[in-house]
Amino acid sequence: MSFESMWADLQPVGRSAHSGGYRRFAWTRTDHDLREWFAGECTARGLDVTDDRMGNQWAWWGEPDDAARRGDKGVVTGSHLDSVPDGGAFDGPLGVVSAFAALDVLRDNGFQPARPIGIVNFVDEEGARFGVACAGSRVITGAMTADRARGLTDADGVTMAEALEAAGRDARHLGRDDETLGRIGAFVELHVEQGRGLVDLENPVAVATDIWPHGRWRLDFPGEANHAGTTRLEDRQDAMLGYAGAVLAAREAAISHGCVATIGKVEVTPGGVNAIPSAVTGWLDARGASPRAVRRAVADVRSMVEQAGGHVTEESWTPSTPFDPALSDRVRDRLGGVPMLGTGAGHDAGILANAGIRTAMLFVRNPTGVSHSPLEFAELSDCLEGVAALGAVLEDLAGAPA
Amino acid sequence: MSFESMWADLQPVGRSAHSGGYRRFAWTRTDHDLREWFAGECTARGLDVTDDRMGNQWAWWGEPDDAARRGDKGVVTGSHLDSVPDGGAFDGPLGVVSAFAALDVLRDNGFQPARPIGIVNFVDEEGARFGVACAGSRVITGAMTADRARGLTDADGVTMAEALEAAGRDARHLGRDDETLGRIGAFVELHVEQGRGLVDLENPVAVATDIWPHGRWRLDFPGEANHAGTTRLEDRQDAMLGYAGAVLAAREAAISHGCVATIGKVEVTPGGVNAIPSAVTGWLDARGASPRAVRRAVADVRSMVEQAGGHVTEESWTPSTPFDPALSDRVRDRLGGVPMLGTGAGHDAGILANAGIRTAMLFVRNPTGVSHSPLEFAELSDCLEGVAALGAVLEDLAGAPA
Repeated sequence: MSFESMWADLQPVGRSAHSGGYRRFAWTRTDHDLREWFAGECTARGLDVTDDRMGNQWAWWGEPDDAARRGDKGVVTGSHLDSVPDGGAFDGPLGVVSAFAALDVLRDNGFQPARPIGIVNFVDEEGARFGVACAGSRVITGAMTADRARGLTDADGVTMAEALEAAGRDARHLGRDDETLGRIGAFVELHVEQGRGLVDLENPVAVATDIWPHGRWRLDFPGEANHAGTTRLEDRQDAMLGYAGAVLAAREAAISHGCVATIGKVEVTPGGVNAIPSAVTGWLDARGASPRAVRRAVADVRSMVEQAGGHVTEESWTPSTPFDPALSDRVRDRLGGVPMLGTGAGHDAGILANAGIRTAMLFVRNPTGVSHSPLEFAELSDCLEGVAALGAVLEDLAGAPA
Repeated sequence: MSFESMWADLQPVGRSAHSGGYRRFAWTRTDHDLREWFAGECTARGLDVTDDRMGNQWAWWGEPDDAARRGDKGVVTGSHLDSVPDGGAFDGPLGVVSAFAALDVLRDNGFQPARPIGIVNFVDEEGARFGVACAGSRVITGAMTADRARGLTDADGVTMAEALEAAGRDARHLGRDDETLGRIGAFVELHVEQGRGLVDLENPVAVATDIWPHGRWRLDFPGEANHAGTTRLEDRQDAMLGYAGAVLAAREAAISHGCVATIGKVEVTPGGVNAIPSAVTGWLDARGASPRAVRRAVADVRSMVEQAGGHVTEESWTPSTPFDPALSDRVRDRLGGVPMLGTGAGHDAGILANAGIRTAMLFVRNPTGVSHSPLEFAELSDCLEGVAALGAVLEDLAGAPA
């Protein structure tokens, strides 16, 4: 299967006819179809597929457990297949398809790996359904406990445990998976760039330096449900007003402190046109090159929210995640000195790096910088440059002496 | 069936264990159960039930078509059984239960009506599912065309036509129903008060003067979907910012012009925590004693929305609706001079009044003024005062010479 034909196979899966974007959410029927596609690509290449304790899919060329007995470890690449609501085709799938394509290049060239090469499909990277990004890598590294993962709920109140069972899985298996982690000597994730860095640098591929500090905060505003027509303004406790203030405060705070802040999700109770909201919850996403700047911006928002009688809960906070400097330098050198870029986006690679695994990332040029949108795009020629780069990196890491 | 036992029968239907409020939406299973309850109460009293072209349920004591041949018309009371999301138990059901209870009082007293008495259950008064309030009365009076009603969609994209068919109805039947309207000589709707007017006046029952001018406007803000972590602030088109400004502008405008304005419903596309909103739609509800004040407040909001690149669409506008002055005076006199009150809430009675039907309303005291909330309440003793008042009014209107 060529890059183009794999791409064409994935193209219709989970695509909304309405928006043109993708709705590929964890443990849904669409997710099942994507997992079947992944398993099929592995089978077609004679690779065995195993699921880890969280259901991330791993395929190996070679025997990682034999390598482990020799005191060696494998080289893993891959990414994820899920999407944000109405997301693009590239964020995630480009890394998985490029992994298969790069492996094909190595095999076509008659490459004989000195250590095993693995391809991974991480589940639930976007957190679109259950609200926690990188759930697949967080659980197997212990960054999120199994109990917390099982108890996460989607918009319909379905827990992740229930969703796993509905998908035919046993939620009791969730947990840190040292056996799986022990097979990874190095992890290299290829990803479409989500900004315009490579456009300005006029280069199709970059190596990542780090993932910016990043957090999510839940902003809860209480109100009092009442009739929109008959309740005097002075008798109202309208939760929407505090929420609106927080949206504007978050933008002001981001400008003041030189970071980015977004409120992209809101839930209103009861949510009727003629009912004063009794509760509004918004989610703040804030990131920046400096953790201090992000913390200061969030403190500004918190102050505003609390003045409005609301409450802020930190749902996640990830400090700056540098990728392995020696590995990243080796990758860059192997690729002839391509540019290095930081990023405001989170990735499973960042979770693995935080768990002490040697990790690097490759970015492929995005001509518009647009991501998390049906308009997300990369030129085929740049994607194929990415495949070639990934192949060269795997050849280097899997072929050289340990 | 006493008032209390009817009330107890309805109590669990469509009640959310989570909120304690009601989720009784048009053409759902819960709505079906409520319609069955209504039909059962009619059958228990030997009243035939007929559905009009919109599916509103009508039960008659006496023969309205015989009366029509004599050149006379019936006296109708009743209300609706549906609710807003997480609404209270009283808004709607109090008028229906009181209608049956008042009819029982008349029969127990051996009253012989000179003209027929009807009880109605209007469908979809709140518009919670399809967004248009009083859909049942609007369609049969021609205030909303059948085509528009059929094409309304709920949050899942289901059209009203599809919902009707799913409920076993024929959506082709929808339309103005002059046969049904021709039977109504007078309509008197009893309703829980949705403010604190009767608390201040220390009276259990009032007669309505008018329904305030009232409208709904849809506010659409365009944006550009993009990644919340990697898109620079200056490159963003974040639709949430305009929306937040409109929420605050609506409150300011209501204060400035002495009316009420509420944004209680919002939809965000794509709605992910890490995605910049590409579209936000909010719904503005504005009302006031003066149509000019409401118009001015909405003009202020429109100006702000358009400055933010958004667009305002008027979804409904109902000018002040006075109830029939002669009928209302007669009702008030019959009740010994109870207070008269205007209201900011819409009702099917208002739609009938606009269609030229002689219409009046009775309000029953609400000790907190809270409505459209699980906390909505009325004392049983006040409800029974309402039943007695409604019985006296029906006796007067159905017993006196035409």
